[in-house]
Amino acid sequence: MKSDEYSFASDNCAGVDLDIMRALNDVNQGYVHSYGDDVYTNKAKETIKNMFGGKASVYFVYNGTGANVTGISQLVHSYHTVFCSQVGHIHVDECGSLEHNAGCKVIALPSTDGKIFPEQIAPLLVGIGDEHRSQPGLISITQSTEYGVVYSQEEISKLAVFAHDNNMHLHMDGARISNAAAALNLPLRAFTSECGVDLLSLGATKNGLMFGEAVVFLNEALDKCYPYVRKQGMQLHSKMRFIAAQFEEMFGTDRWLNNATHANNMAQRLVRGIEKHPQITITQKVQCNAIFAILPESMIPDLQSLFHFYVWDESKGEVRLMTSFQTTQQEVDHFVDAINRLMQ
Amino acid sequence: MKSDEYSFASDNCAGVDLDIMRALNDVNQGYVHSYGDDVYTNKAKETIKNMFGGKASVYFVYNGTGANVTGISQLVHSYHTVFCSQVGHIHVDECGSLEHNAGCKVIALPSTDGKIFPEQIAPLLVGIGDEHRSQPGLISITQSTEYGVVYSQEEISKLAVFAHDNNMHLHMDGARISNAAAALNLPLRAFTSECGVDLLSLGATKNGLMFGEAVVFLNEALDKCYPYVRKQGMQLHSKMRFIAAQFEEMFGTDRWLNNATHANNMAQRLVRGIEKHPQITITQKVQCNAIFAILPESMIPDLQSLFHFYVWDESKGEVRLMTSFQTTQQEVDHFVDAINRLMQ
Amino acid sequence: MKSDEYSFASDNCAGVDLDIMRALNDVNQGYVHSYGDDVYTNKAKETIKNMFGGKASVYFVYNGTGANVTGISQLVHSYHTVFCSQVGHIHVDECGSLEHNAGCKVIALPSTDGKIFPEQIAPLLVGIGDEHRSQPGLISITQSTEYGVVYSQEEISKLAVFAHDNNMHLHMDGARISNAAAALNLPLRAFTSECGVDLLSLGATKNGLMFGEAVVFLNEALDKCYPYVRKQGMQLHSKMRFIAAQFEEMFGTDRWLNNATHANNMAQRLVRGIEKHPQITITQKVQCNAIFAILPESMIPDLQSLFHFYVWDESKGEVRLMTSFQTTQQEVDHFVDAINRLMQ
Amino acid sequence: MKSDEYSFASDNCAGVDLDIMRALNDVNQGYVHSYGDDVYTNKAKETIKNMFGGKASVYFVYNGTGANVTGISQLVHSYHTVFCSQVGHIHVDECGSLEHNAGCKVIALPSTDGKIFPEQIAPLLVGIGDEHRSQPGLISITQSTEYGVVYSQEEISKLAVFAHDNNMHLHMDGARISNAAAALNLPLRAFTSECGVDLLSLGATKNGLMFGEAVVFLNEALDKCYPYVRKQGMQLHSKMRFIAAQFEEMFGTDRWLNNATHANNMAQRLVRGIEKHPQITITQKVQCNAIFAILPESMIPDLQSLFHFYVWDESKGEVRLMTSFQTTQQEVDHFVDAINRLMQ
Repeated sequence: MKSDEYSFASDNCAGVDLDIMRALNDVNQGYVHSYGDDVYTNKAKETIKNMFGGKASVYFVYNGTGANVTGISQLVHSYHTVFCSQVGHIHVDECGSLEHNAGCKVIALPSTDGKIFPEQIAPLLVGIGDEHRSQPGLISITQSTEYGVVYSQEEISKLAVFAHDNNMHLHMDGARISNAAAALNLPLRAFTSECGVDLLSLGATKNGLMFGEAVVFLNEALDKCYPYVRKQGMQLHSKMRFIAAQFEEMFGTDRWLNNATHANNMAQRLVRGIEKHPQITITQKVQCNAIFAILPESMIPDLQSLFHFYVWDESKGEVRLMTSFQTTQQEVDHFVDAINRLMQ
Repeated sequence: MKSDEYSFASDNCAGVDLDIMRALNDVNQGYVHSYGDDVYTNKAKETIKNMFGGKASVYFVYNGTGANVTGISQLVHSYHTVFCSQVGHIHVDECGSLEHNAGCKVIALPSTDGKIFPEQIAPLLVGIGDEHRSQPGLISITQSTEYGVVYSQEEISKLAVFAHDNNMHLHMDGARISNAAAALNLPLRAFTSECGVDLLSLGATKNGLMFGEAVVFLNEALDKCYPYVRKQGMQLHSKMRFIAAQFEEMFGTDRWLNNATHANNMAQRLVRGIEKHPQITITQKVQCNAIFAILPESMIPDLQSLFHFYVWDESKGEVRLMTSFQTTQQEVDHFVDAINRLMQ
Repeated sequence: MKSDEYSFASDNCAGVDLDIMRALNDVNQGYVHSYGDDVYTNKAKETIKNMFGGKASVYFVYNGTGANVTGISQLVHSYHTVFCSQVGHIHVDECGSLEHNAGCKVIALPSTDGKIFPEQIAPLLVGIGDEHRSQPGLISITQSTEYGVVYSQEEISKLAVFAHDNNMHLHMDGARISNAAAALNLPLRAFTSECGVDLLSLGATKNGLMFGEAVVFLNEALDKCYPYVRKQGMQLHSKMRFIAAQFEEMFGTDRWLNNATHANNMAQRLVRGIEKHPQITITQKVQCNAIFAILPESMIPDLQSLFHFYVWDESKGEVRLMTSFQTTQQEVDHFVDAINRLMQ
Repeated sequence: MKSDEYSFASDNCAGVDLDIMRALNDVNQGYVHSYGDDVYTNKAKETIKNMFGGKASVYFVYNGTGANVTGISQLVHSYHTVFCSQVGHIHVDECGSLEHNAGCKVIALPSTDGKIFPEQIAPLLVGIGDEHRSQPGLISITQSTEYGVVYSQEEISKLAVFAHDNNMHLHMDGARISNAAAALNLPLRAFTSECGVDLLSLGATKNGLMFGEAVVFLNEALDKCYPYVRKQGMQLHSKMRFIAAQFEEMFGTDRWLNNATHANNMAQRLVRGIEKHPQITITQKVQCNAIFAILPESMIPDLQSLFHFYVWDESKGEVRLMTSFQTTQQEVDHFVDAINRLMQ
């Protein structure tokens, strides 16, 4: 069975890191208690907790939408508003799951690179205590953003202070948090728990797992009833060791960082290869593993016949190119060569 | 890392069938489109569709609760009532997920073995068309039941006719449908699509998968908006090939049947080994891979120090013993030996 | 326009008490702040608060379903179970509104007269703390019950102690609470706040109001976010003075008691008039304003051609006869005469 | 009991039209069937149906939020997006009730006067058929808008065509629809049913009713299950004749138009009285019964000590002044005099 040979469409098009595969095989022996009451799960939870400074409540779920939606549902009431960016995954790519499950309002703020700031939210905090108005509940940011850009520690701290000053919580969608850490050259806790983030969706599927995501309450006091929310949210896995083993393998070693660094490097290689062409405009800072670029429109179909990638904004001829842990130098170079060829 | 050596607690305590593991490894090459738009997923969907006679819409989700809740949500409105048995998984073991997600009413009917019948529902069909009353929407049965008992084809057909005559749909929770097929010595379609079942949660995790479940609309016309319901229900996997490959390996061969037959045989061996003791009462027909038995109370702690299993009803001293594809003759024999020893 | 002349169908078929009408007219002058920020509303809230001993949070809503559903929604999470009787209005007559709005599970307990007891709930309190199970959240009782029967103070106290001992709240649906008070010859607080009831739906529409119901948190600490829940539940009236004025007129005087006493007396007069016939079986204790009686089947159509009333259980030939504040001795006597005539 | 003497805060601060009061008194005789199965309700439904050209399904509910939310809930699934203006009542003033009840996404579009246009929505119609995206479901407009401005027939027709061309429905929040009709000098049907509006929330409380609103499905085919949605939405009144009588009195005569015309005229008188002051900026066209004006900041407290009205936007010193059927020339003139005095 043939697969798409070279894909720059999404880091989700990659397979599973071979060491993760090995870890899955290793853990497949004998019987263990189901639903997470097993040594593998306890160990992986401990590993993650320690990554964030020793104070965190860790729960495994199936995927990013599951982590975002059940985690946020734990922190807001249906009369709350969740603020996020206009391109936020929870707003654009989860089919309204947050509204359906938490019953809350989502207010999406304009953003050119996926980042949002307290200054945008402050003027919206009107009608506090007015029963006619949805009340401010939570700010959700994505690190790295849907445009591959990273928040600095200072930016995150300011958001956290602002959120807490206004009785809100701060959530981080960390679907690509490892890429952000690699870009920032910081440990994960330096821009999460240490900056006041309350809730983290710790993703790693795009970085080499088969499935699974962690919901991490960095503010431990906030997870009170979350086990029920997770189960009700259809996110409790029976054979939990198979999620836990992946997380242990990924975060109990430097694999998360190495894979992300590699993906980021491949993006750098790619952008360096194509940015020299004056007909190509790189539209976002390339900090992680995403490149947004406006290509000559006529070139796109030819290129798509050779490589799988998405046109992001048809009106502008803007494409998105994603690299991953699996991307090879050869793949990048072939892509760059193809561009060069088409440019002649 | 040590695992519970011999477990009769649940078929969820088993690991992953080695051939399934191999299939996961085999599919882990190159890039493929994400979210199910790939050859592996298409093939597995086709395989399942054909198992049910060629007319079915097949969707993969993460787990049994996800399949039950999103599938049923597609078929009912919030003003509908879902009828199930008092021990139905959707009623007892899913933390109210159906009510939360579909917003509907669940009426649980008394049952000694997990089976329900049209005669129990008929008297409840009052107030049809009365806006004050939740309206009959769906009947949900579990095959094999939570007590390890199977519905006959005739029983299922009667339920389907009754459901359709009263503007309801019939859903089957098939978390252990393979064990039922083995017990009935029938192909899956003989007691599902051919009996008028509208919606099937096709489970196989308990039978050897790592994760994943299929939502199968046997009445193809009913899946109209289900892709949105699945996504909103947080059940759409990004790297879908890794669910698909498992289903293809399981249902594209006889593995589903062989594994289930083995589990059922182990249950037979176990029950034959212990039923001779007059102090032991077998409380349910042993048709599949579950044994319910009342043991002398004093014996239970000793036995639990050797084997992992659950006390089902503390008041009666009733225990549940589950076998699985992974259970060996030796494990069963050790268990029987232990009982024999404790009986002396 | 002709109205049904004599109705024993429901106390909802009556009109509006003339003094309530006068109060509505009286309050209709000038401008007042909307949504309850007015002197009339504050006064009526104070009046009700004082009726219950001075500690209560009072909110006005539109109707009984609104009071039950928004009030209970404030006290439970979606992973909770609400226990009520099989004939409870919230279970049978509100089209699943509680499940839809609170997202919780409703377990309806068997009951012959609409009353439920701790002994029925105790065996169901299994799986506490188990994330697979909906958790016990609230007990809801109806006073007087849907069968016109009243709980004693002792029965209510026992339910409250049991609820609180098990981390549940106790809700009372008081759609006909005035009739219960008249039957018990007790002030309202004697069998609500003084017995440990946490939340009361204080109804009076059946007793002479045009519209409106009060949600009374007898445990004041529990109303924290209720204003948002009420608004979100579409139950916040703009011209609130017109609900408040009715409540002030009803509960700031003895009207509530006089009207209910009259209705109860009319029921007594009716039952005394018909119970002598050996062909008639009175099936419930007549304590308030409802009579349940099995009549000779052949008699029912003739009687229904003269009076409006409902057949409650067709299989038994059981009818429900309701009296109200509006019922006259003459109406009762005509009904009794008609029965006498038909019996000859 | 003293009321706010002169209020320009909201048309909700007015009382009840005396003829409506009389109609309530008139209908208060004898017994009628409850929940709308009565001659008064049937007559009022017929009256409204005929106003819209004879093809409409009419249902009475309690209030505007109830009409908007249950009506829209009938037309959308939880995976749909509802488009409205940034100042839309459903978005700003209903505490997220639509998201909570329908579970859908709400996208609020920028608007300076409360009006929205197809051109704003068209670019947002991306990802049609993509399961990751909420799907376009409904456009909701407010006539007259929250800024007192009216849509023309042509504008509404264009929105309807656009909605239908894109598989959406068009809803009109008609809380002040009578004022719009008076402003347009058109019958109600001329800019609703005849322009392709599918669903109308027909309000009249602000125009003189005590309570009640009508949900009008102008596209009759769309109301299929609405009775259950209404009941579940806690919007079904028991003593329905008291809503029906108000609607019959209001819309069976020209009262709706006369009251609205009067309110509009009072707004014209007020704006003519104050617009001459160069220190005052009228910020919106005054077409109905709302005036938005920027006053000298220092003047506002003095004015508020004499009259009740709201500061709309503190940052700009913008106030909202509402007139109603109850506003008198004397009240307006006193207000204008006060401004004149303060200006000196």
